[in-house]
Parts: sequence; C-alpha cells; structure tokens
Amino acid sequence: METFVREKKIIFAMMGLPARGKSYISTKIVCYISWLGFNAKLFNIGKYRRDSYGTKDCNAEFFDPANKQAVEARKKCSIKALQDLVKFLKNGGDVAVYDGTNTNVERRKMVADLLKQELGENHTLIWIESICNDDVIIENNIRSSKLTSPDYEGVDPEIAIQDFKKRIEQYKKVYQEISTELDGEDVSFIKLSNVTKKIVMNQITGYVECKLVSFLMNLHITPHTIYLVRHGESMNNAERKLGGDPELSERGKRYLPKLKQFFDDEKDTGAVNEKTKLFTSTLRRSVETANVIDIGARPASFKILDELDAGVCDNMTMDEVEKKYPDEWKARATDKLKYRFPMGESYIDLVHRIEPIIFAIEKCTEPVIVVSHTAVLRCIYGYFMKRPLKEIPHIEIPLETVIKLNPDAYYNREERFNVEINEKCKTLQDIS
Amino acid sequence: METFVREKKIIFAMMGLPARGKSYISTKIVCYISWLGFNAKLFNIGKYRRDSYGTKDCNAEFFDPANKQAVEARKKCSIKALQDLVKFLKNGGDVAVYDGTNTNVERRKMVADLLKQELGENHTLIWIESICNDDVIIENNIRSSKLTSPDYEGVDPEIAIQDFKKRIEQYKKVYQEISTELDGEDVSFIKLSNVTKKIVMNQITGYVECKLVSFLMNLHITPHTIYLVRHGESMNNAERKLGGDPELSERGKRYLPKLKQFFDDEKDTGAVNEKTKLFTSTLRRSVETANVIDIGARPASFKILDELDAGVCDNMTMDEVEKKYPDEWKARATDKLKYRFPMGESYIDLVHRIEPIIFAIEKCTEPVIVVSHTAVLRCIYGYFMKRPLKEIPHIEIPLETVIKLNPDAYYNREERFNVEINEKCKTLQDIS
Repeated sequence: METFVREKKIIFAMMGLPARGKSYISTKIVCYISWLGFNAKLFNIGKYRRDSYGTKDCNAEFFDPANKQAVEARKKCSIKALQDLVKFLKNGGDVAVYDGTNTNVERRKMVADLLKQELGENHTLIWIESICNDDVIIENNIRSSKLTSPDYEGVDPEIAIQDFKKRIEQYKKVYQEISTELDGEDVSFIKLSNVTKKIVMNQITGYVECKLVSFLMNLHITPHTIYLVRHGESMNNAERKLGGDPELSERGKRYLPKLKQFFDDEKDTGAVNEKTKLFTSTLRRSVETANVIDIGARPASFKILDELDAGVCDNMTMDEVEKKYPDEWKARATDKLKYRFPMGESYIDLVHRIEPIIFAIEKCTEPVIVVSHTAVLRCIYGYFMKRPLKEIPHIEIPLETVIKLNPDAYYNREERFNVEINEKCKTLQDIS
Repeated sequence: METFVREKKIIFAMMGLPARGKSYISTKIVCYISWLGFNAKLFNIGKYRRDSYGTKDCNAEFFDPANKQAVEARKKCSIKALQDLVKFLKNGGDVAVYDGTNTNVERRKMVADLLKQELGENHTLIWIESICNDDVIIENNIRSSKLTSPDYEGVDPEIAIQDFKKRIEQYKKVYQEISTELDGEDVSFIKLSNVTKKIVMNQITGYVECKLVSFLMNLHITPHTIYLVRHGESMNNAERKLGGDPELSERGKRYLPKLKQFFDDEKDTGAVNEKTKLFTSTLRRSVETANVIDIGARPASFKILDELDAGVCDNMTMDEVEKKYPDEWKARATDKLKYRFPMGESYIDLVHRIEPIIFAIEKCTEPVIVVSHTAVLRCIYGYFMKRPLKEIPHIEIPLETVIKLNPDAYYNREERFNVEINEKCKTLQDIS
C-alpha cells in the first residue's frame, strides 16, 4: 500500500503540557512509521532550544509567558525546527513528527500557516494532543524521563522536580486545549486522554492516519518483556536450503529439552507466568519448538508468523539459487530489504504482513514469547530495538539463542542467552 | 489472527436517535466482521417489534415515553432480541451487533447487566453511538431508508415523513448521550458525529475493536461505483495451470483493445473520470491488462492484489495436482474456503491480506477500477455484495467480463458486461 501516502506529505504535530508523554508518543510514531517503510523523521523543539541556548539558563523562569525575551527565543526555535521539517518533506520525506507543546491557538495557527505557505495543498497537518489529569502519572513521567533530561544535568533531583513542576505551571497560564470551537471545524486532531483511555478524533481519514490510530489504541506505558526464539535447527537449515516446511533435524530435536529448561527457569524467577502469551507460526519446525515451552497456555499459531516466502527459490540451496537465477542473486545482494523473490516476498512485504503481531505485542502488559523464523524475528527485533529498516535483513538471529527484550521508548535493553551451552552471550550492542 | 477474538465474545451495541444511520452502520459492521471470518450476527430490535406487534399501530404515539403500555411492549422486544443474541454467542457466535436506540442510561444499564449475568466476564460490550445534528443529512436519511421501511408500507410518503419526525421527537424526550459522567468511567464506547467527521472513543482496545475503528474511519455515505476486471487470458489459463507469473495469451492480447474501448465509453458517459482510481496487482497478466485502461492516472500496483498463492502447486495443472497430491486435492474439494495450499494460502488468508484494499475502496468517493485475479476478485465481490464467506470461493468471475458494482448497505446492484462480444450479460442474481 506504499503509494497511498505519497499523494500527500503528513505532519503529526504534538501538543500538550510538559510531562504528558509527548516525546514518548513522538518517538513511538516515528519508529512505527519508519518501520512501515516511510521516510519519517522527528523534529523536537526542545532539542533546537538546547542547541541554540544551551541548558544553563533554562529554569522555570525561562518558560514564563511574561518573559518576553524568552518567549521570542522559544518561538525562534519552533520556527527553526519547522523550517527544517519543511526542508525534510521537500527533499523526499514522507511523514514528519513535530514535537513541542504548541500550547495555544495562535501558535498552532502559525504552524498551520507556515506549512500551507511552504507546502501548499500537498500536505495534511494532524495535531496530536496528550492530556493527563492523573497526578500520579505526571509525577512518574517527571521522575522517569525529566530527571535524565540534559536540562537538569548535575541538578539535585528534588530541586529539578520542583523546577519542572513550576515550568508546567508557566505553560498552564496560556494553555488552550485543541477544539473545533477554538481551532475551527476543519482542524484535524487526535486527542489522547490519560495515555489512550479516551481518544477523540476530528477529521481523521486516510491510510497512514488509520494505521496510526490503531497503533495508538494499543500503546500503553507498562514495561513488559518480549522473548524472541528461533525454531530449532531444521532439515533445511542443516542442508542450507531456503524455506520449505521441513521437520527439525537431530540437532534441532536435541535442543528442545534445553529450551524447555530455559523457560522453566524463567518461570521460577517469575519472569514468565501463566499469563504469558506464546505466539508461533504454522510451520512445523516452529510449532514443534513452541510446543516444548511449558508456561500453561498452548501456543497460538499464526500464518502471518510464517517465514519470508522465497517464491520460486523455496527449498533450494543458496548455491542452486546463484546458479539457476544469477540475476536474482545479484539483485538480492544489492538491496536485500526491497528484493522480492519471484512469486515470493521482500522484507518490506514481510513488515506489512506481520504488523498485527506488533500491535498484539504492544498491547500486552504481560510477557510475550514469539517462536518464529529468522526473517520474521529480524523484523520484530528491528521494530522494538529501533533499527533502521535497511539494517533489518542483516540482524543476527542465531540458532539456539533466546533474545530477551526489555523495550521502552528512550533506550532499549537486550539480553541474549545461548541456551545450548546455557550461558549469556553478547548482544548486538556489545558487538557493535 | 483468528484466535485473538475467541478469548472474549464482543457485543457492539448501537445507540442513537432514529434516522442517524444506525442500521446502515450495523449492517456494514456485520458484513465486515463476517468477511474477516468471524461468526457475526445482527440483532435488530425494530425487527423484533414488527414480528411481535406488526406494523399497524406503530405510528408516533407508539413511541411516546408516556405511553406506558407501549414502553413495556418495546422493552420486551429489546429483551427478546438480547436473549437471542446471548444464545447466539453461547452457541459459537463470536461477535454480535445489537441494533436499537438504547436511548438512556437506565436502558443501557439493563443491557449491560443482562449480558454480565448471562456471559460473565467472558465478553466485551462496546456502545456505538451515532450522533447527527445536520438536518439535511437527517432528512435525507428519512427519505432514503425510512420510506421503504415495513412500518410505512402503503402510507403516503409525506405523511410517513411527518410521522417519523414526530417519532424522533418522542425519543428526544428521554434521550441521553453516552458519557463517562452518566455511564461510568469504565464504559467502552465509540461515538460517531455526523457520520465519521468526529469520533470519540473511551476504553477501546483489542484486535477486532482496532480493526473496527479503522473500518469506521473510512466509511462514508456517498455512493460510488466499483469495477472489477479480471486480467486477459494468460498462458497459464490457456494451459489450465494454476498461478505463476505468465504473460497474456494471444486471446488475452486480442481482448485488450476491447477493454480499452469499454472504459473509453464509460468515460464518455461520465461514469468514470480523471479522479477514478485504478488498482492492480504486481503480476504481469494483470499489469498488462490495467495498462490499456486510459483514464488519465497510471495504475497503482499492489503486491496484496496478487493472486492466491498456490504454494507447491503453483504452475501445475489441476490434473497434475490431483495426481501428485491426491490428499490435498480431496481436502480442497471438501472445504475450499479454509483449504490452504502447502506453502501457500487459503481464501481466509487472502481475505486478511487484501483488507487494506477494501478500506481504500470504502474510502473513495470517486469510482474505483480493480484489475486483478479470480480469487482476489471473488473476495472483493463477496465483501461488497455481502455474500456468505463460504460462497466466496465459488463466485463466478469469468474472463472478458467487467463487473460493475453499485453497492450500498441495504441492497446491491450489479451489472456484468461481456466486453468481448460487447453486450450486457446475466448477473449472479439473475442466474440464482
């Protein structure tokens, strides 16, 4: 469905008081949209402010709407960020996320006018407002993300929190929620209240927009663990053949009790429990592997977790492919991401195919175990670990290794366990 | 993703004043959810009322909230419909749509309580409220659907309209919009204003629910035409082989200028125009065919419009399949809908694959031409013409025939043109 978006550039512009999770949501949107294959980029006004004015004098007074000089300075940063955003969209960008508070109608009108002037009718501007009136969530937000902000480097945490709360109060003085009454009947917006408990949409339609709404509906902020497990060695792996639906090899079968043991141990530590979801594909090597994981529930098999379809090359060895289809071989080596096997799939196709699984994993607040195949696991890993799309076809997903992800929006933690020899091994971050 | 829904039964319960498009939306939801492969059914309270009390004495007085006897009678019908709905869900139903006005908190609480009592925790109740404050839309709704209602059979149209407007006023006396204040913080609802211009969601999450929201976001009520065009005869068609990526046969090539002429004629009548969308697959026979249609825009090629993947049987003749894979052959004959070719796809898989195209077509307010393959066109036809899923693999999609659909929620009109001999031919309805 790639060409749907090309008709118009899309700008998702954030708005909301500080500590409402705007940057978390922005980061997630850019990850998701990029992973779908669109050229997407984040423009964070705060970063422009820090780059221009540093972080020395940015205590709460800097955010006082009565402080004319500071207001002017902050406006300049917003415009600079917006100009770069326009440049990006004019030079091949598809989707841009504009992350800032955009507190009142006047500011939002300025943004809309500048975009219209620069991009004409060839764009859609959608405001995403994050509202939170739960003091506990706000306090947690401040503690979990603002204390590590460059704005408060070297500042005592309690002082930083007090200052940040003052900053919020400064913004509240001029804050106006978006509405059709204030911003006009035709304004497009998505208003999220208390994460995604309540969502209000006005004038939202279109392919990417619908996808984004579904995505946002599944977001939550409860951290949960994801296990990525490649099936045991198959007969085709042993013979270095692509795809097929082979059974496990002898080596694959020997591995199963060790994998069972690994998850029994995780059960003992409480890392997995009877609420853990276990997803697998419909192919034999994957189902056989998933079946040994004993967490209570039976594995749920999904066709969309099947391995990348190698089309006419299915069941062939790499050497055979190279001999029989030398041009295909070369094309694949040149661009492994977009290369589509004749009658088969590309990595880009695969990403679109497995998207419902990403939503299902995002939605879970409990651990999830995915037993699947190299290419599929590469796509899932790439999404959660925020790897550029072009790196995805090259991510290492070794046999007999369990990858344990503890993802969040700002950093990613990964552990890898070689289950065969029962020890922790290097992660991709360690290696690179 | 079939198993996601099985965890819980889902009830979408409509609410809203009369003539707000509730039945249109209900019908669309049931079509869409059934087409995805779920066991879904509509329970319309009005139908229960007509079955129990006939249509003789159902003028506006019957809907006066002060008319105690009638209130009691209408309540009985709601309960009867709800009991049947529960029975359906207990006997294998996945999703039920409960279509009625459900005007106030008391009535909604009664529905929620009855469902909880009967289904326990094993269900999700989601209210869908349709609000409309545009008098033109309301008047149009009354004229286009209420005049043909059995309630007004044989009644003078102008009298019927006046009576129906009175009926709306009766409902307004007791109507309470759904809200967290009235219905509680935890109530799940989707509120649609003026079709889908504004959408408010509270506590909506989950796989089917997200799909439904995306679906609703693309709905509109502007009728538009859809042309389904099978590619010209391919070399594999001529040799009675499955799938592959063959070129057009001689017969296929001879057909192209006639197809071009057909759409040139449609252009002359204004049935298609330069805003018409033209979608096709990535396979040669389909792209070659689409390329001759000269409506201005180039065809957009989508991998998801490619033919059903016959897996290991690709490029084989039916006789070869029967000989080489006799068990597969039998399995396919037994259940063509769910049958999945080894390493290939089933019709159910195909439905899920092409879903974004359905959204794209639903979204268009201009004509759409889809040039694709038998199985894909069967799925699209089945959705718009509301055919039961099990019939889809058997729908006739002949060569050299253009199918022109004028779909709406209540009835379907289809025309078929044999382009080869340049004449209108019988539709499926004519035949059956």
